Amino acid sequence: MKRLAILGSTGSIGRQVLDVVRRYPDRFSVAALTAHTGADLLCAQAAEFKPSFVGLTGSTQAIDCAVPVAYGAEALEEAATRDDVDTVVVSVVGMCGLKAVLAAIRAGKTIALANKESLVAGGSLVMDAAKAAGVDILPIDSEHSAVWQCLSFGKRFQKIILTASGGPFFGRTRDSLKNITPEEAVKHPNWNMGAKISVDSATMMNKGLEIIEAAHLFHTDRIEYVIHRESVIHSMVAFEDGTIAAQMSPPTMDIPIQLALTYPERLPSGTPTFDFSKPLTFHAPDEKNFPMPALARESLRIGGNAPCALNAANEAAVGLFLKHKIGFCDIYEIVKGVLSTLSVIEKPTLQDILNTYDEIVGKLMRDYR
Amino acid sequence: MKRLAILGSTGSIGRQVLDVVRRYPDRFSVAALTAHTGADLLCAQAAEFKPSFVGLTGSTQAIDCAVPVAYGAEALEEAATRDDVDTVVVSVVGMCGLKAVLAAIRAGKTIALANKESLVAGGSLVMDAAKAAGVDILPIDSEHSAVWQCLSFGKRFQKIILTASGGPFFGRTRDSLKNITPEEAVKHPNWNMGAKISVDSATMMNKGLEIIEAAHLFHTDRIEYVIHRESVIHSMVAFEDGTIAAQMSPPTMDIPIQLALTYPERLPSGTPTFDFSKPLTFHAPDEKNFPMPALARESLRIGGNAPCALNAANEAAVGLFLKHKIGFCDIYEIVKGVLSTLSVIEKPTLQDILNTYDEIVGKLMRDYR
Repeated sequence: MKRLAILGSTGSIGRQVLDVVRRYPDRFSVAALTAHTGADLLCAQAAEFKPSFVGLTGSTQAIDCAVPVAYGAEALEEAATRDDVDTVVVSVVGMCGLKAVLAAIRAGKTIALANKESLVAGGSLVMDAAKAAGVDILPIDSEHSAVWQCLSFGKRFQKIILTASGGPFFGRTRDSLKNITPEEAVKHPNWNMGAKISVDSATMMNKGLEIIEAAHLFHTDRIEYVIHRESVIHSMVAFEDGTIAAQMSPPTMDIPIQLALTYPERLPSGTPTFDFSKPLTFHAPDEKNFPMPALARESLRIGGNAPCALNAANEAAVGLFLKHKIGFCDIYEIVKGVLSTLSVIEKPTLQDILNTYDEIVGKLMRDYR
Repeated sequence: MKRLAILGSTGSIGRQVLDVVRRYPDRFSVAALTAHTGADLLCAQAAEFKPSFVGLTGSTQAIDCAVPVAYGAEALEEAATRDDVDTVVVSVVGMCGLKAVLAAIRAGKTIALANKESLVAGGSLVMDAAKAAGVDILPIDSEHSAVWQCLSFGKRFQKIILTASGGPFFGRTRDSLKNITPEEAVKHPNWNMGAKISVDSATMMNKGLEIIEAAHLFHTDRIEYVIHRESVIHSMVAFEDGTIAAQMSPPTMDIPIQLALTYPERLPSGTPTFDFSKPLTFHAPDEKNFPMPALARESLRIGGNAPCALNAANEAAVGLFLKHKIGFCDIYEIVKGVLSTLSVIEKPTLQDILNTYDEIVGKLMRDYR
């Protein structure tokens, strides 16, 4: 019986984690649940799964719930470090995930990781801590899960090839994107996602962030990506003998979520195999019209707090775009500007990372009030 | 240093095995070489690789060679069982491969297997012997090598999905194939192969034989195939969670040959990775117009000496077709007729298998003299 703490249980990933627990009640128990919002759903989940700890991080106001609830940001770390927890599923959004991941690692927990910020902003901190503690970090993101699976073909690889759907504006020129509205940007062809991540997909920054994550998870800078509109191949790994290993399935988070929990076993999921009814196509990246991934690579090259700055600037800029305060193409210009004027800290501490994030987001919010 | 016996060293696979030895002279030595024909090339190979044993199986007449040469069919088993051999590469064509494989297994050698007949005609004998001796059988065929690689994704699989190029007559109706000439049938779109195997590709019997081989190698009857014209995905394995693992590379035998020798390591080969410049397409099998794979499955279902009979009948019929004695579509009719009138031996011995083969080939040769 694997005892789970699910951080962010009312979000899309958190809810699907609970579906896996429902599917395999003999294999998993829920020891802790936390949510930032969605108190009603959190209470319903608590009633169903009977965890020993329930936390509502987004409020300090007591809610009407049949079980005892802890309130405020501290609840996240408490859930992540409890003695009755084996695996911590980190499916919260934002920088709070980084602190929770580091706390869980120090407590010796296995990490099932769906929080982008942990690796993008604090990749070196997280990977160093995991190595020191001898803790496994199992990726839940579909691309990184695919890479992790493909690495079973062999230890030494030539390069990682992430796949990218290309987003809703694939094939368009930068000029034609100037007047894109938030409503157009959040329509993704293959995946049903939140607004922020949908815009990241439209700008291709999602692939940039994934390159940073993959660089940390797999200790390499040999990472390419290819546009693959069908989102059936979730990523690939090329080996020195010329072999490419590919992981395929219909576009669903069900498989990577379940595998991170059941690993090293695979169990039946709710997803059928791809039925080969359509061709799989590939296109070279177009970084002239979609320059975000190049910016992400540049932040990796600078190192230190630069990827954190990139992520903070992107997050703030996407927020401003969604509020109609800046145009679609301004997102890139803002991130580029932040990166070029950054005071680089080569070996940032956790506090340096958190400060970098707060300062950049704070300044952009003030600048575009 | 892995010491190789290469049975069939002057054929296409044998020559490529020697290319791998040339590429990694510090890892491999050649202890034994045999060839059925091609005495001049065999002598040149012997001069270059200095094996302790050289055999010419297709002749009992002494040839002019700088090193001592053994002659006749017995040379095959001697090469396969010598004390100074670790791995036996079985790249001979025909039923003699089965005897050599069984001898090598009993001598405790690792088998790198490119001989179809061993598994098609004698699959149960070979797999039982390998299990009893604790010997590994590493497939060299591109499809089976791909399946074997994909199985690293997980132990329990849902099904194997072989890929098939579809051959030169993909998309055509059976009626339109009646007057196909041998010259048309041996033109394969992706692979440069011998005449017999090219005709097997044109009739799709190659996929039928591969289904039988895979059934033995991977202990399953859950084997499908899909037409994949580009021959980039060399086969796939579907797992219970909905994941499909795929092995990709440009169409070359270089990778499966090298991997069978270097396993569990992968080393740089002469083959680049697939460059994603073209789409990958898939089509459902068309067994109405290409019914050979169904016949192969039927032989598996019957069991015993039936797959051997299928293979013998097919080999004889393809030979008759290549000599313009029968039409292209007669190949199927002959194999079907042989299978439907076969005296089934449920638990055949090696001698039963060899007799089944000889009787069927002999009879067909007499019938169509």
